[in-house]
Amino acid sequence: MGFRMTETTSGQLRVNLRPEHPTALRLIDVTVEMIDAHGEVAVRVQDVVAAAGVQIPVLYRHFGNREGLIQAAHVRRMQNELASFLEEGRERAGLAQNRDEFLRTFDQVLDVLFGPERADARFKRLNVVGSGYGRPEMEAVLVELQQEASGRLGELLKPAQDQGWIPATLAIPTFIAWLTGLAMSQTLIDLVDDAELTQGWIAMSKKTAMAILSDTI
Amino acid sequence: MGFRMTETTSGQLRVNLRPEHPTALRLIDVTVEMIDAHGEVAVRVQDVVAAAGVQIPVLYRHFGNREGLIQAAHVRRMQNELASFLEEGRERAGLAQNRDEFLRTFDQVLDVLFGPERADARFKRLNVVGSGYGRPEMEAVLVELQQEASGRLGELLKPAQDQGWIPATLAIPTFIAWLTGLAMSQTLIDLVDDAELTQGWIAMSKKTAMAILSDTI
Repeated sequence: MGFRMTETTSGQLRVNLRPEHPTALRLIDVTVEMIDAHGEVAVRVQDVVAAAGVQIPVLYRHFGNREGLIQAAHVRRMQNELASFLEEGRERAGLAQNRDEFLRTFDQVLDVLFGPERADARFKRLNVVGSGYGRPEMEAVLVELQQEASGRLGELLKPAQDQGWIPATLAIPTFIAWLTGLAMSQTLIDLVDDAELTQGWIAMSKKTAMAILSDTI
Repeated sequence: MGFRMTETTSGQLRVNLRPEHPTALRLIDVTVEMIDAHGEVAVRVQDVVAAAGVQIPVLYRHFGNREGLIQAAHVRRMQNELASFLEEGRERAGLAQNRDEFLRTFDQVLDVLFGPERADARFKRLNVVGSGYGRPEMEAVLVELQQEASGRLGELLKPAQDQGWIPATLAIPTFIAWLTGLAMSQTLIDLVDDAELTQGWIAMSKKTAMAILSDTI
């Protein structure tokens, strides 16, 4: 590969996976683009430093090795995905004036969440979370990000619960985790690319989610 | 890395991802063990050939490069995971004499599916499916395997539908895909490692799955 990797494995990695240095951020941006386009395997250290306009030792100083860079890039991909999802939620939050409006709005949120436009975002998220296998430090950061995002999404639902539009007994963070996990798993359906299966899966997912939310289950 | 990779990328890979040659199978077994233990990044070609007792050119002949080997290993991991899951289902299929017994049996299957003993299997499956990002040929094989397994799992439920214990309108393959995807997404919950969240998530998943199956939604 031209670039000599250090002896550290992912298990012994001591790298800041959320760096703030502008050069580190530039290297991450380039790597995220490469992973998003062709997967982790397509990331070549020489290409990354060339695209970021730095020398290899600079990358080495920030990330230890290719593995450290890739982990930091996955963390950024998770952040990107969660941010775009939070934005969707925020846009629609607080618009409802009563329970019916709230449930209708949530139904629309589910259409977006399970919609074809989000297929790539779903696959990216599955790729990021799945790539934490064998990388405990990175997975810990991913879980932390996921928990943060769930908390913020939960806050968007809290007013509806305070109004009595959502069952008081519903643990919102659990519901959010359940729902976003379900959406991630939709990748398996997206990849089969069968219209009947897709429609049936979405109907099943919407029906169960709305039943939990409207307390009819 | 010592081993010179060819110019082929995952996108241009021309490798049999389900080989039958005993040497290829040995190389795959060794690689599966390494990925299962420490993730894809831990796979070193030198270690694989050493453990399999062959020379590097042999590996090269069967898989083209490290990437081809890894993809074949992921396919095998998917096969292993699906086989173990099918076995669980088969053990319990056909035991019920009436609808109540059937629903009780299915409830027990869900306890196993969402149980702590399957946490590693869930993470492996998530890792395998997620690693198909940017690897279209491999992903196509994974989807095919998934569809085959869903079909076989569906056959186990067919007699119950014929007996009228499951709604006649329920598309069993869709339900199986929904349920196994949901179980895969549980990894996000497993990793948070919070007893209350875990219990709440399992209760939500069981309640919705049983509602679909018993037509109370």
